[in-house]
This record gives sequence, C-alpha cells and structure tokens, in this order.
Amino acid sequence: MTRIIEKHEIAALLQDVDVIGAMEEGFRAYSAGQVLVPPVAEMLFDDPPGEVHIKYGCITGDDVYAVKIASGFPGNTGRGLPTGNGIVLLFDRATGAVKAVFLDEGLLTDIRTAAAGALAGRYFAPRAVRRIGICGAGTQGRLQLEQLKQVTDCRDVLIYDHHRENSGRFQREMTQKGYRVAAVEAPAEMAAACNLIVTATPATVPLFRQGDIKPGTHITAVGSDTPRKNELAPALLAEADRIAVDSMEQARYRGEVYRAVKEGVLDASRVRELGYLAGHPGERRGHADEITVADLTGVAVQDIQIAKAVFSRIDT
Amino acid sequence: MTRIIEKHEIAALLQDVDVIGAMEEGFRAYSAGQVLVPPVAEMLFDDPPGEVHIKYGCITGDDVYAVKIASGFPGNTGRGLPTGNGIVLLFDRATGAVKAVFLDEGLLTDIRTAAAGALAGRYFAPRAVRRIGICGAGTQGRLQLEQLKQVTDCRDVLIYDHHRENSGRFQREMTQKGYRVAAVEAPAEMAAACNLIVTATPATVPLFRQGDIKPGTHITAVGSDTPRKNELAPALLAEADRIAVDSMEQARYRGEVYRAVKEGVLDASRVRELGYLAGHPGERRGHADEITVADLTGVAVQDIQIAKAVFSRIDT
Repeated sequence: MTRIIEKHEIAALLQDVDVIGAMEEGFRAYSAGQVLVPPVAEMLFDDPPGEVHIKYGCITGDDVYAVKIASGFPGNTGRGLPTGNGIVLLFDRATGAVKAVFLDEGLLTDIRTAAAGALAGRYFAPRAVRRIGICGAGTQGRLQLEQLKQVTDCRDVLIYDHHRENSGRFQREMTQKGYRVAAVEAPAEMAAACNLIVTATPATVPLFRQGDIKPGTHITAVGSDTPRKNELAPALLAEADRIAVDSMEQARYRGEVYRAVKEGVLDASRVRELGYLAGHPGERRGHADEITVADLTGVAVQDIQIAKAVFSRIDT
Repeated sequence: MTRIIEKHEIAALLQDVDVIGAMEEGFRAYSAGQVLVPPVAEMLFDDPPGEVHIKYGCITGDDVYAVKIASGFPGNTGRGLPTGNGIVLLFDRATGAVKAVFLDEGLLTDIRTAAAGALAGRYFAPRAVRRIGICGAGTQGRLQLEQLKQVTDCRDVLIYDHHRENSGRFQREMTQKGYRVAAVEAPAEMAAACNLIVTATPATVPLFRQGDIKPGTHITAVGSDTPRKNELAPALLAEADRIAVDSMEQARYRGEVYRAVKEGVLDASRVRELGYLAGHPGERRGHADEITVADLTGVAVQDIQIAKAVFSRIDT
C-alpha cells in the first residue's frame, strides 16, 4: 500500500528524526561512490517564470529509491504563497511500487538543506561561536539558524536582508523563539561581528568580498544553486583555509566553487566533499583562526536520506 | 488541495475519456513545437535488474505540467506482480502546487500507449480489416486490441507469443470479451492472414522480415522502446510505403526507425510524425495495397494529455 503523508504529518515526524545524522550518512555514501545520482532533470518556464527540478537516485544496497520534484515560482510571493513547492516519492527498489508520497510542499527540501548547512557547521564552525550571521531573511535563513542549535549554544544573531522589512519580520519571529536578533544594513557589518555566517539568498552580486571576513570565521553558502547566482567573491574562496562542498560533480557547474575555479583563482583539488570530511576528522577545522567555507548546492542523496528517515518513523 | 486518485478510480474515469482524441491533440501540439519535452531521465539497476524512466513536460498555454515516473522490474513476474508500475503527477503551471497524484500503477501509461497505437491505426489501417494480428500476449497486446475497437469493427484475431501458454490465456480472456481468437506458432503465419498487425513484445530479434508482410497491411510496433529492442527488420521498413513515428527526436535513439536509419536502408526524411499526419490527412493511407508502419516509442505529451483528460473528469 502506498502511504500518503501530508505536510503537517511530515513536520510532526521530523521532530523525532536526526536529520543532520541522516545527511552525514548520505554524504558519506555519496562521496564513497555508493549512490546512483543521475543528472538533475529540469524544466525552465518563461511566462510566468518558474523552474522545476527533478532530483532522483538510489543508495547502493538500499531497498528504496527516491524521486523529488521541486519547483520555484517567483510569482507566488504576489499570491501570498511560498516560492518553493514540491513532492517527494519513495519507491520499492525491488518492484517499483510506490511506497510513500510525501506531500511536503518543499518542507523536506528546506529541512535537508538546512541540515546540510548544520553539518558543515559541525565540521568547520569555530569552537566558540561569538555571534551567528544570517544573510537572507527567508525560510531557509530561519531553518539554517534553527538547525544550528544542534551545533552551537550561541543564540546571538545578526540578520541581513536586501529588503529591510524582511529583516524586521525575521527579528520578531526568531526573538520569540529565544534568539537575540539585531538587523544590519550591510553584510560587512555582519562580517565584523560574527564568526559563523550562513548565506541563503538569491544574490547574483557577492555579499562578501576578500578582506571582509575575519580570521576564525566559517561561512556556509547555500543560496547559489545556479551558474548565475553568486554569494561569495571568488577571491574570498581563494584566501580561505578550507573549502567544502556537498558534491564536487555539481560544483563543476554551479555554486561559489564553480565561480572561483572558473575565474582561475581556486584550485579545485583543495576542495573536499562533506562525505569525505565525515571520514576524515583531521581535515575539519584546525587552527582557531582559519577561515573556512562550505558551498552547498543540494544533492539528491539528501532527498533520499530525509525521505527514508521520515518514512522509518511511520513504519515503526 | 491535492487530489489523490487511485487505480480503480482512474479506470472508472477513463470510461468517459476520449483517449485517442486526447492523444491526437497532444501529438498535434508536439509536432507543432508547442510542447516542452526535455530528455527522458532514467535510472538503470543491475541487481535485481530494473529500469525507471521519468517523462515530464508541458504544453504551451496549458495551466498544468505533468511528471510521470514509470518502472519495469522483470523480477516482478516471479512475485506474481506486473512488470510495470508507476505514478503520474499533475502540477499547477503558475505555482508549482501538486494538483493531482495518480496512483495508477502504470495503467495510464498502458492506456495512452494503446491509444497511440489505435490513432496510428486510424491513419493507416486498411479500410477493410480482414483479421487483426497481435504479437505479444501481455497487457499491452490486450489493450492495443481493445483500443482498436474505436478504429475497426473486426473482431477476428490471431495471437502470437513466444510463450505458448501466454497465447492460450490471451485467447481465453479475449474470447470472453467477444473476439474470435486463434493462436499461431510463428509470426509469418500471422502475416499471411492479417492486414492489421500490432507488435507489443520485448523482442530483440525481428518478428517480421522483408517479404513476410502482404500488400495492404499496416503494422504498429510499440514494443521497441530501447536501442537494443527490435521487432521489425530494417529491410521491412525500407520497403514500406508510409512510415510514421510519434517522435522524430526519439526515433533518433530508439525504436524500429532508429535501427533502419542506422543501418542505412531508410531515409529519415520519409518518416512522418503522427502529429503531422493529424493535420495532413492526404498523407495517411492512400492506395489499398500500401504497406504502412507506425513505430511508437512513447512521448511525455501522451502522459500530459491522459492525466489532463482524466483530471478533467474529476473536476467537473
């Protein structure tokens, strides 16, 4: 029988799931070459504009495979709807039967993306997080901050958003959740005060440049998932002490590392995958004053892992 | 709200749908370049063997787009399950919201494939169908025969299957549905007696060769959906008077036309798309003694069209 799982049920089930652990296990399998992840399928629409991505794959030895259809329609904002939407499907690897339909409206993508950010934080964040900086006061900015609870006790936050009213809303909401939040007018202000920064914006002009970032800072960039988007200046990556990505394969086509390698300032051989770092703790943050960067574009193995994890909570 | 539609509901709703008409309209849009159909996404598994295809697309001007995930797991037969399975999803083109989840287990694919065969029959079948020949006594062979009710009154049938027991089962079942069915031991026997033939097999060695087919016969080949499969000898296509495909683009990579062109015996410029024939009745069957061939590999526009058609029956 196919299980149909609605968004509110998924949200409830997620309370009992170690998503960061599921991501770590998934990235480990991915970097070990144990995941079948064919190229992302996509549809790009013009009028009204929108994009649909289909990510799908299977971990070797698993009894399921997963397919996720995720969309982004900018016009939704004007309708009072979230930009992102989607659905995740889990199939029986032996028969092709549909085991589960997650009507998650993009929730699983949002959570798995934030959990990957937290995993990068676990590997790279400074031991003493002074203040957390979040660029982009959207859903992902909020979730990144919340997932970081698993990584640091720090609750002092600076928020930057291109639209000041978004920062205000973020400030009010996250204050209610126990954070001390102040808004800044420019990313550079954040860089001066925060040593753990997450960028979750659709920026096409870098938020941070070389020299903005102080020693001892970690930055996770999750906004740039297309070749055009760009949150961090290539020179910033060039000067970073350690750089991680979720997928070297995808970093060849999109994201911050793609930019920096393309511009000739970054040697791709310096970059490590999260799944590699899972098995090599010695290559995570070293000295306290290192500058580290994680550039995440999102991999199907994350969708497989979060779908499996939630499904396992139903089955038991 | 997302509508979840189970297989038995889909089967009931299909009773009131003109699937052949929906296919014709879809192929017409496809051949006119009004359909966004990105390349098929796929996963191929080894152990246990299986394949998953993801077909997706959108017709220009439509308010929906569709994604279909279809699978074939040969090992299902040993479990008493059909080889094929799948799910079809319909999304709001403006917002990305999931409008409908069709838990069809492959039924929509089976029906739309059979309906495309019937459409080819409508364009190419001889006016007086003497006897219908079906190669392949599986689900698709049965459905092709049933869809042909919309095209011809003929109820005299010869069945051929590599496994004789399958032919026997087909004979019993289709006799109960009002057909007069006899089984043959070899395709050549069928070619001698039938002037409307459908091949729906996974053959990799041609069932029919040049000279087997008598003048005035039409053959629709639907089994060959991979580069390796092959139901009709290339020389047979070379001698055919008219040849149609559903998609010229796909015929470049798979199917009977692909083979014949690759072997240098068929000039691709002689081949017409069904969507072209929809608007050019003068290029359908001409003289009574023409040999005609339709080679169908299956296009996402069919999935879009059948999903829309079934969904429209719910909405009203």
